[in-house]
Amino acid sequence: MDSICRANMKDLTVTMEEVPEPYKGLGGRGLTSAIVHGEVPPTCHPLGPSNKLVIATGLLSGTTAPSSGRLSAGGKSPLTGTIKESNAGGTASAEISRLGIAAIVVENQPTDGALYTLVLTPDGAQLVSADALKGMGNYDAVAKLTEDYGEKASYITIGPAGEMKLAAASIAVTDRENRPTRHAGRGGLGAVMGSKGLKAIVVDSGDRKVSVHDPDACLAAARRLTELLGEHPVTGEGLPTYGTNVLANVINEAGAYPTRNFSDGNFEGTEKISGETQRDTILEREGTATHACLPGCVMRCSRIYNDENGEYLTKGPEYETVWAHGADCGIDDLDAIAQMDRLDDDYGLDTIEMGVAIGVAMAAGVKAFGDAQGAIELLHEVGKGTPLGRILGSGAEVTGRVFGVPNVPVVKGQGIPAYDPRGIKGIGVTYATSTMGADHTVGYSVAPNILKVGGDVDPLRPEGQADLSRGLQIATAALDCTGLCLFTAFCILDRPEAMDAIRDMLNAKYDWELSADDISALGQKVLKIEREFNAAAGFTAADDRLPDFFKEEPLAPHNVVFDVPDEDLDAVFNF
Amino acid sequence: MDSICRANMKDLTVTMEEVPEPYKGLGGRGLTSAIVHGEVPPTCHPLGPSNKLVIATGLLSGTTAPSSGRLSAGGKSPLTGTIKESNAGGTASAEISRLGIAAIVVENQPTDGALYTLVLTPDGAQLVSADALKGMGNYDAVAKLTEDYGEKASYITIGPAGEMKLAAASIAVTDRENRPTRHAGRGGLGAVMGSKGLKAIVVDSGDRKVSVHDPDACLAAARRLTELLGEHPVTGEGLPTYGTNVLANVINEAGAYPTRNFSDGNFEGTEKISGETQRDTILEREGTATHACLPGCVMRCSRIYNDENGEYLTKGPEYETVWAHGADCGIDDLDAIAQMDRLDDDYGLDTIEMGVAIGVAMAAGVKAFGDAQGAIELLHEVGKGTPLGRILGSGAEVTGRVFGVPNVPVVKGQGIPAYDPRGIKGIGVTYATSTMGADHTVGYSVAPNILKVGGDVDPLRPEGQADLSRGLQIATAALDCTGLCLFTAFCILDRPEAMDAIRDMLNAKYDWELSADDISALGQKVLKIEREFNAAAGFTAADDRLPDFFKEEPLAPHNVVFDVPDEDLDAVFNF
Repeated sequence: MDSICRANMKDLTVTMEEVPEPYKGLGGRGLTSAIVHGEVPPTCHPLGPSNKLVIATGLLSGTTAPSSGRLSAGGKSPLTGTIKESNAGGTASAEISRLGIAAIVVENQPTDGALYTLVLTPDGAQLVSADALKGMGNYDAVAKLTEDYGEKASYITIGPAGEMKLAAASIAVTDRENRPTRHAGRGGLGAVMGSKGLKAIVVDSGDRKVSVHDPDACLAAARRLTELLGEHPVTGEGLPTYGTNVLANVINEAGAYPTRNFSDGNFEGTEKISGETQRDTILEREGTATHACLPGCVMRCSRIYNDENGEYLTKGPEYETVWAHGADCGIDDLDAIAQMDRLDDDYGLDTIEMGVAIGVAMAAGVKAFGDAQGAIELLHEVGKGTPLGRILGSGAEVTGRVFGVPNVPVVKGQGIPAYDPRGIKGIGVTYATSTMGADHTVGYSVAPNILKVGGDVDPLRPEGQADLSRGLQIATAALDCTGLCLFTAFCILDRPEAMDAIRDMLNAKYDWELSADDISALGQKVLKIEREFNAAAGFTAADDRLPDFFKEEPLAPHNVVFDVPDEDLDAVFNF
Repeated sequence: MDSICRANMKDLTVTMEEVPEPYKGLGGRGLTSAIVHGEVPPTCHPLGPSNKLVIATGLLSGTTAPSSGRLSAGGKSPLTGTIKESNAGGTASAEISRLGIAAIVVENQPTDGALYTLVLTPDGAQLVSADALKGMGNYDAVAKLTEDYGEKASYITIGPAGEMKLAAASIAVTDRENRPTRHAGRGGLGAVMGSKGLKAIVVDSGDRKVSVHDPDACLAAARRLTELLGEHPVTGEGLPTYGTNVLANVINEAGAYPTRNFSDGNFEGTEKISGETQRDTILEREGTATHACLPGCVMRCSRIYNDENGEYLTKGPEYETVWAHGADCGIDDLDAIAQMDRLDDDYGLDTIEMGVAIGVAMAAGVKAFGDAQGAIELLHEVGKGTPLGRILGSGAEVTGRVFGVPNVPVVKGQGIPAYDPRGIKGIGVTYATSTMGADHTVGYSVAPNILKVGGDVDPLRPEGQADLSRGLQIATAALDCTGLCLFTAFCILDRPEAMDAIRDMLNAKYDWELSADDISALGQKVLKIEREFNAAAGFTAADDRLPDFFKEEPLAPHNVVFDVPDEDLDAVFNF
């Protein structure tokens, strides 16, 4: 029987309890959202004692399911004020599952500003002082923790940004090489962790295994999914070969690659920062061009990026990171972008939010567009916690407010990622209506709009985009419960058998009898919970909108505005 | 027939038009709110081209009405995102009225970042370059303008804060001595003016007079109101003798004087910054202890504050200013507070928002509570536009976000002023429900809660506060249409004949036949317009709340929390 582990940061107690009835059958995002909905007052201050940080494993975490093991973090977001779930790869989720823990709920906060580490092992759970880690970047913190707890443990940490409670602060999860490269980036959950005085979570499951009701059936279904993932051109070929940054040329060619704070849809420097160039650079420097961020991943879209001397610098920056620190800031220097990726990972910052914030600052003239060294300096300001750094680390919206910039690409306070909603209208619907603020991962309409995966809907026409986003948001909410990587969806959208395999794995693990409809219903349930929280926090249809400039200022080269009618946006949650 | 003057800042044209039908019969706040409601898209960016800055005269402006001549500024607020009206004394409103202008509507924005001055005289209206005023403080800007346009003109200006589009930027209006001491402070309308590229408005009515249908009847009613104001202990004695800061001791004794970022209800240094001490200091230095901020004021609550050498420093800082830069920051140095008042007026900043923002910054440890020189330095940072200054100049909410402070005293993003809502629950209802964000002036429940003016409702009990706030908000919205100073309300609340005199003046000026009910209906109409705008901008009942810490953390010395039920708050606009 899985447990909820509650860490009370005021009296420094850790308790285990059986998963309460209302949370049963949920995992990942479904579980974080249900706990936040059930236990956090929607109007509370995200950095106050009433908010909770919830860290949940996916339903299939630790099993033989391929590309599973995403770890969900949830809470009320200091960036958006909405409910928030952000998930990361790495090794921690499986480790937590092996300890029989479905979720860690971090409650209350210390009154003395002290820092703690939560240690979870088969011997129990305890909070120990983390004062020795104070102010450390994620890399140093993990190195120090590894000295104490060993190579086998997984580490979940925050950097200085989280300690400073900056709204762009991420939560880092170690990868298979014990590097803090996988981040629950969006929405500032690192700041919530910081506000709880929690610097780190150490998880070592020893020789524990997750319990699976019917291991053979689970393995058989896992093998079927593995096979299907290998057969699909995106998951079997595109992602392993070029990683996520395969999209740079694709989106630029579609005229939807947001350039210099969303003032253009084409970036003249795309070739220099594309996935193809990145691959060549990695191979040239003897990095790793195909790498799994978590055990058992068959898509292996991660990579290892070495510097000019062939020394490890950072993981291969993802498409959104390359865009955020690249095109959005007019920067075409891949090494500079990789350095920024490393700084973000070390300071504990969301790469997307930081790139968008720096783009807004550049629009205000703080640095010139294209000034790669200037952008790197800005990230160091964040790490040092200077006033300028704190502005940027508070995200794009605050940066826009402080510098008086009217064109600030955010929805519900969260920076819009790497796809211009004027050029890919389906993703604009998702940005506008997502329960999380602008987020491409919660309903990736780019697939049918551009990649022709899971359908074919003209990206430049408003018609049909709301229906598309609705279906994708429901399916994604369900998928986010399982702990499977979102990228399995490329395959699922085209091959219904893949969803059957997932259903079979869930049924095999839990002795359930889920149908495909039940899985869709799960997605709807999660979205409804999230919408309910947001409504109680004060969000209305008026918040489900893109900033006006997307509706008023045409985007080159197609000279299009975002023209999906408000009624369509308001119909996304009609189910 | 009065006109609307429209200044289009894109093509630099100024046109006059007859007041359109839907705006007829409105003045002051009623007129600004109707125009903003009618012409500004509720979801637009406050600093973008779609917002408008509306400057309107009161219905009685320029007549013989005593203590009339408040000038209303309106627009969508960059601080709160709501509709906003903020009004100021000074001489400009009467001058504008004499030119037959009911409102100035500033539309669109220049694309080249240039600055302009709008010049209004009997010869017409035009926009001229204000590049020579760029970056100037209000004092220098007015001095320079006076060289060109003379002592008789009135000046409406913004300082560097408005040019920088900071959300705490005010709009300054010159007083009878041609000093920029009267400010439409709240809500950042100075930033809206800055975003329009409008540095100044010069108004010289020459020998024009306002037209009054029945001057004798108007004068007779004005004399009656003058007499009543003279008889009332607050308007006839307290305000002329001690100014608004007479309240410091009163509110401190009531245990509701917010101290060190709202962590206490008593300030140990109150005596040193009280109205009584301020009066003694002013008299000792041969300042002016009783002064009218606008022509024809009988309450004369303004004053002139000299420095230690007997040289003019600033106008007598108001109660809220003394509190904001004093008790809220733990500062008990009256001269330092007066210097900050001068800096706020010169840089063009809302004194309340700045004090609250600095209090939040002190809670974060940016400076220590009580550090008067540190607070002065912070204001200079704002004037210089450093990152730290821009944070503070963006208001208390942004300051709290950037520095990760959970206890941020704001409602709808606007800093809560000088009365703790736990100790004076009636004003808490007004803060929570106001259409403007936290604002004491829109329904001053302090009068019946503490001063026993207009009733007697126990400040510490939740019962009856919603009814109180409702009545006061309606009456205030009506009063704010007339251009009469809010302080006439002290008299009106106790002496119904005062309202009769106001009604008679309106009827005499416009040949109307208003009843008392019509005036109340006017107040209701204004509030409904404002609520409608806010609803369309996305505000809901969840926004009509105080921050949770007021409900959870008891305030000394009474150890009370804010416990007016949400249902009561939601019933305030039931009319």
